[in-house]
Amino acid sequence: MFPQCGLLAVVDPIPQFNPLVGGRVMARLWELNEGFFNSTRLNHYETLFTVGNGYLGTRGTFEEGHSGCIASTLIHGIYDHAPGMLVPELANAPNWLPVAITVDGTPFQLVTSTSDFMRPPQGVVIGYERTLDIKRGVLRREVLFRAATGAVVRLVFERFASLYDNHLLAQRVLIVAVDGSPTVRLHAFLDAEVMNSTGQHWTAPARVYSNGHGFGLAAETLQSHYRLGMASRLVGPGAITPLPHPTQPGAVAEFTLKQEEAATFDKLTAVFTSRDTDEPLDAAGAALSGAVSDGYDALLAAHEAEWAAYWRDSDIVIEGDDALQAAIRFTTYHILIAAPRHDERVSIGAKTLSGFGYKGHVFWDTELFVLPVFTFSQPKLARNLLMYRYHNLAGARHKAQANGYEGAMFPWESTDTGEETTPQWSDVQPDGSRIRIWTGDHEQHVSTDIAYAAHQYWRWTGDDAFFTQHGAELILDTAVFWGSRAEDKGSRYEISQQIGPDEYHENIDNSVFVNRMVVWHLQTALDVLGWLKQRAPADAARLESALDLSAARLAHWRDIITRMYIPFDTEQAIHVQFPGFFDMEYIPVQAYQPRITSVQAILGHPRTIQSQVIKQADVVALMALLDDQFDVPPGFDRRTVMLNNWNTYYPRTDHGSSLSPAMHALQAARMGMTGVAYDEFDHAAHIDLEDNKGNARDGIHAAACGGVWQAIVLGFCGLHISPAGELVTRPNLPVHWRRVSFTVHYRGERRTITVGHPEGSPAA
Amino acid sequence: MFPQCGLLAVVDPIPQFNPLVGGRVMARLWELNEGFFNSTRLNHYETLFTVGNGYLGTRGTFEEGHSGCIASTLIHGIYDHAPGMLVPELANAPNWLPVAITVDGTPFQLVTSTSDFMRPPQGVVIGYERTLDIKRGVLRREVLFRAATGAVVRLVFERFASLYDNHLLAQRVLIVAVDGSPTVRLHAFLDAEVMNSTGQHWTAPARVYSNGHGFGLAAETLQSHYRLGMASRLVGPGAITPLPHPTQPGAVAEFTLKQEEAATFDKLTAVFTSRDTDEPLDAAGAALSGAVSDGYDALLAAHEAEWAAYWRDSDIVIEGDDALQAAIRFTTYHILIAAPRHDERVSIGAKTLSGFGYKGHVFWDTELFVLPVFTFSQPKLARNLLMYRYHNLAGARHKAQANGYEGAMFPWESTDTGEETTPQWSDVQPDGSRIRIWTGDHEQHVSTDIAYAAHQYWRWTGDDAFFTQHGAELILDTAVFWGSRAEDKGSRYEISQQIGPDEYHENIDNSVFVNRMVVWHLQTALDVLGWLKQRAPADAARLESALDLSAARLAHWRDIITRMYIPFDTEQAIHVQFPGFFDMEYIPVQAYQPRITSVQAILGHPRTIQSQVIKQADVVALMALLDDQFDVPPGFDRRTVMLNNWNTYYPRTDHGSSLSPAMHALQAARMGMTGVAYDEFDHAAHIDLEDNKGNARDGIHAAACGGVWQAIVLGFCGLHISPAGELVTRPNLPVHWRRVSFTVHYRGERRTITVGHPEGSPAA
Repeated sequence: MFPQCGLLAVVDPIPQFNPLVGGRVMARLWELNEGFFNSTRLNHYETLFTVGNGYLGTRGTFEEGHSGCIASTLIHGIYDHAPGMLVPELANAPNWLPVAITVDGTPFQLVTSTSDFMRPPQGVVIGYERTLDIKRGVLRREVLFRAATGAVVRLVFERFASLYDNHLLAQRVLIVAVDGSPTVRLHAFLDAEVMNSTGQHWTAPARVYSNGHGFGLAAETLQSHYRLGMASRLVGPGAITPLPHPTQPGAVAEFTLKQEEAATFDKLTAVFTSRDTDEPLDAAGAALSGAVSDGYDALLAAHEAEWAAYWRDSDIVIEGDDALQAAIRFTTYHILIAAPRHDERVSIGAKTLSGFGYKGHVFWDTELFVLPVFTFSQPKLARNLLMYRYHNLAGARHKAQANGYEGAMFPWESTDTGEETTPQWSDVQPDGSRIRIWTGDHEQHVSTDIAYAAHQYWRWTGDDAFFTQHGAELILDTAVFWGSRAEDKGSRYEISQQIGPDEYHENIDNSVFVNRMVVWHLQTALDVLGWLKQRAPADAARLESALDLSAARLAHWRDIITRMYIPFDTEQAIHVQFPGFFDMEYIPVQAYQPRITSVQAILGHPRTIQSQVIKQADVVALMALLDDQFDVPPGFDRRTVMLNNWNTYYPRTDHGSSLSPAMHALQAARMGMTGVAYDEFDHAAHIDLEDNKGNARDGIHAAACGGVWQAIVLGFCGLHISPAGELVTRPNLPVHWRRVSFTVHYRGERRTITVGHPEGSPAA
Repeated sequence: MFPQCGLLAVVDPIPQFNPLVGGRVMARLWELNEGFFNSTRLNHYETLFTVGNGYLGTRGTFEEGHSGCIASTLIHGIYDHAPGMLVPELANAPNWLPVAITVDGTPFQLVTSTSDFMRPPQGVVIGYERTLDIKRGVLRREVLFRAATGAVVRLVFERFASLYDNHLLAQRVLIVAVDGSPTVRLHAFLDAEVMNSTGQHWTAPARVYSNGHGFGLAAETLQSHYRLGMASRLVGPGAITPLPHPTQPGAVAEFTLKQEEAATFDKLTAVFTSRDTDEPLDAAGAALSGAVSDGYDALLAAHEAEWAAYWRDSDIVIEGDDALQAAIRFTTYHILIAAPRHDERVSIGAKTLSGFGYKGHVFWDTELFVLPVFTFSQPKLARNLLMYRYHNLAGARHKAQANGYEGAMFPWESTDTGEETTPQWSDVQPDGSRIRIWTGDHEQHVSTDIAYAAHQYWRWTGDDAFFTQHGAELILDTAVFWGSRAEDKGSRYEISQQIGPDEYHENIDNSVFVNRMVVWHLQTALDVLGWLKQRAPADAARLESALDLSAARLAHWRDIITRMYIPFDTEQAIHVQFPGFFDMEYIPVQAYQPRITSVQAILGHPRTIQSQVIKQADVVALMALLDDQFDVPPGFDRRTVMLNNWNTYYPRTDHGSSLSPAMHALQAARMGMTGVAYDEFDHAAHIDLEDNKGNARDGIHAAACGGVWQAIVLGFCGLHISPAGELVTRPNLPVHWRRVSFTVHYRGERRTITVGHPEGSPAA
């Protein structure tokens, strides 16, 4: 029942309850813990318990499967536009998880109830705990299972996607005979019979084998012809027998345990695609051999060391708020496992690699919400993401040209090709109609968002090498686009037919967010070119020539900057989201409390778009992005206008987007309104944990995860660069927080910053 | 799937999940908050959201009802043994909650999903929040409801059971037209069509009325002939029309709201029974008139003032553990609302007044787990509970006589009569059989538990008036029972056919818990009599005569004290739970982890009782109760034996009883093992919140609630009375706790004590 990025997805609101529990023990500050199996939360928790390593992400689906489960392994870049599908999407890779176990012939499944516990008609689960070790990136599940014979076994499943070698996937299964002397059959296999929710993406396996060296398969996507090779091996005591199968190659171990005896099996898997190598299955086989000879423990140790390094740079320590501390580690974990480490031709989709939502497409979410976290804490990862856009400039130029513009116009939804992949129509609605989706046509601010991220990266890292070779071009060629896009109406420039961040209002003219950010963009482009001319004249000359940055074009930019229409109401002393906004129906959004859905879902789409209900931070986002550069017309007080803007737009905002609360938190904190900032922050930090958008089953909300990190560092701590180029904090901590510590990289230097309540203290 | 007190109740384990959420905001430390309606948790949350005032308890059932709901109002003392029932139970009183609302003809119900949100076929709930304000004892629910016509209303329901005047119940309903101009019909009524899960307890209403003064009814229990009168009135704007009905008398208001207009209605109810007055309905009518003239706001203010006073004495403040802080307030709230304030002839059942579990019967849970909390923090409430036992001495003497003993032998399960009301047989099991329940016959330590509570109350309060008139008699007459019960076997005294706290082992001989506590009991009785002779000779003489405390009897007691068999293994240097215990099958309980049920449920009843699996603290409880008086045979080191006992029995304990974890936490903390103490404490504090026994739907686990309070004060803080009569703390706080503060009443003085980490600091 929650509208998403112009798509109306009908999802039943999912019940959720939070009594005063959870995150209780200090040790739990690094754990996500499920104490009882909850089948009604199956898909939600599969998302939360995702493991990944920046190469792929695998949902927390059980090794033995479960009715209704959504197993998925999504590999960065492996998009496919299979016949009959509206748009390309990340293809669900063959499943590396399956381990089927029988105990005395009873298949192990998570069956938790039986009408007669003294004589169970089948196996029954009598113990359960699932823990995601966020510090080490390891998912662990312990289950106590009683077979129909009465034998009781403890099963411990562990898995991780190696952060040390991104092609390696490791599983361990420990089986302990707690009561009785059961005969156990363990069947490990790979499963090529996988689908996306939209259908099939893979050919039947081209090669498949099960032999003394293990088992593996090779497959190819239907349309994009990406090839994948996956090789696996079961390692354990006693005889292990290959079990060939045309789509599920595997191996079997069968053994009897004495009471209190234990057996440990490791299933190691390697995966490559034709994006990595020409012969993926061969490469997987070779990597697997190495992994088997290293062994599980060594792989785990190397993996843990990489995680320790990740957390050294990305952890935020909050003193005085254990629950938020735990939540912020959870959100940071999820953007870390989604960030490509060794690949600059892929980027992070709106739902990371943890679900089918948004089909793995890349939105502005990445550049404004996720990427800055890495700019500050892991600049190499930020650079990878920016390079993805750089490598896809061709697609952006193509889109500009196709629309009759110059320069580079980035797609609203981006995949491996860099072409626009936003669907034009929604899925079929309950009344049989489809809704036209305009974002691919008119939500053009994404080009500026990318320029913003590139410029911010450069300002903070001082990475001139990247900037002169790649970053500047991103900013300049998108500026060329806007120069050709702005419309000269004689007395002023205007920009028509836009969608700003508030996507409830489509195809509007003169969005203040868009118009003002375009001015910022063109001014930044001029500054950048000036800097290049002085500091890297060869690069300046190269770009002037390649992008046709003629004197006339630059003069045109200056003219736009001077004469752009910035809608402002001088009587109210507010920026106007767009002319006509206040002529529409006023809806008292605050009256719709407590809500469990968006106001759009309550009023319906047709009425919402004719009302003053705002989907997400729009003018507020403008203030947040421009920060100290946010300006007001002559004669107006800046602080007054900012407060007026807040007081006008915040009460009209229904946060129909998961991006909204964190952006509000950031800006409210900066303005010193820590109470409302904390409320919005708290909401944002729990969007996935509490499933408070009702669609966490489709994947993690990457932007919310990145947004809360920024809300702390840029908002509550007020980190910024002073005019003198110094790192400074302007803390506005929630009253019950005692201290916040985090690490930032600033111009090649790694700094640990601790912020307390005393105001205006310079960063340590 | 959890066995309870000898009854095998088959309950499906209920799924439960706790991600890192809940209790997050400082403000939430006084709230239980439900953000989404969760129909699968309906009955569990009805229990959690119970309101009460020590006179009655009403579950958090919705005003409009819900499919599968269990509405109950249980009034202290109103037991009934209706025809066909095994034992008496608290009779579910007529329901005072009902308020049925229609909006534009659409009945308001918690329907949260519809396949087409644009054109709902019926009403739909689009917003929901339920909050129990623990500080003020007020339950509040806000719902946003859209009628089939599209009109949206916000409904706010508030209710409380007045702590100021225990006969008054107050509800407020606020209706706001958020969108549209709806016509609303509000129908408030009382419902006499109520049942217990076992069947019907009430006659058809003897009187029932709906007129200009309100509506009311009078009814009578079938067997015990308790009469009840309930009078109610709906107060609000506009015309209110009486709506007569033979079992559901009520009143109706119908009105149209303009958009953004609001209407407030108050439903006030008074209830009396024939335990309070001869004419309950007349009394209710009179009380209602007063309440109506005072008005809701004044009633609420008086109620809040009483709650503030309650919390001044009973709150524990934990610094450094917000989640446990929140949990401990929740548990304390539930024992406070269950404790009779103005009635010394009733006591607290094992499930408080919040559900049908254990039928409202009173167990040892009260004296050892709940009552001490009041001894320390609200002595008047403790006195009421002890007086309940005093007034029921006749029943106890009757039971002793019927079993061939002297003195007073308290029933294992007690109701209004003081007679034994433990059922002899369980409900029908899945295989059609019934299981014999032996606790009513052989779980005799309850008499000593009562003596213990009376003695502890006296020691801490110095309430000599109570003690000379009532308390001493409780201790002495139960000592008379034990004197007649102990069996002289020549070389030593033995006690056969007992059930100790570990109820898995029934009808055993020489339970070390029982035998040693009997020694304590007899010694205490002798001490008490000595004190009386010196300080209250008239009372001593009265009791010597009434109870036949002859010199021969006292000499016999001394003989028992000297020659009682205390099973001890000199080789292992441990106390032996009972001779033969270690000859049974050893089950490695630790291997059955993680468990979601008791080991008894895993192994089955027949095997468990033949094994060394222990249901709950038994030898460990003995150490906890005797504290500094816990002794070991000559030549043995006390601390060594205590550790040996712990290391022997703790790993064999499956905590099949909800009483076990808190008792372990207390004792482990005292012994300085704060890690394991914290784990057990954490578990105990969440038994109801997380439903980790799977039966919270049947009511709050009173003993666990009292146990965690004691675990903090007596365990982690180590509060005790020094030999010199000073209050002293011996802190063993969990490492991450910074400070704990609480209030105790000690010999008439109210003291606030704050405990930190430095050890051995004397109480402030």
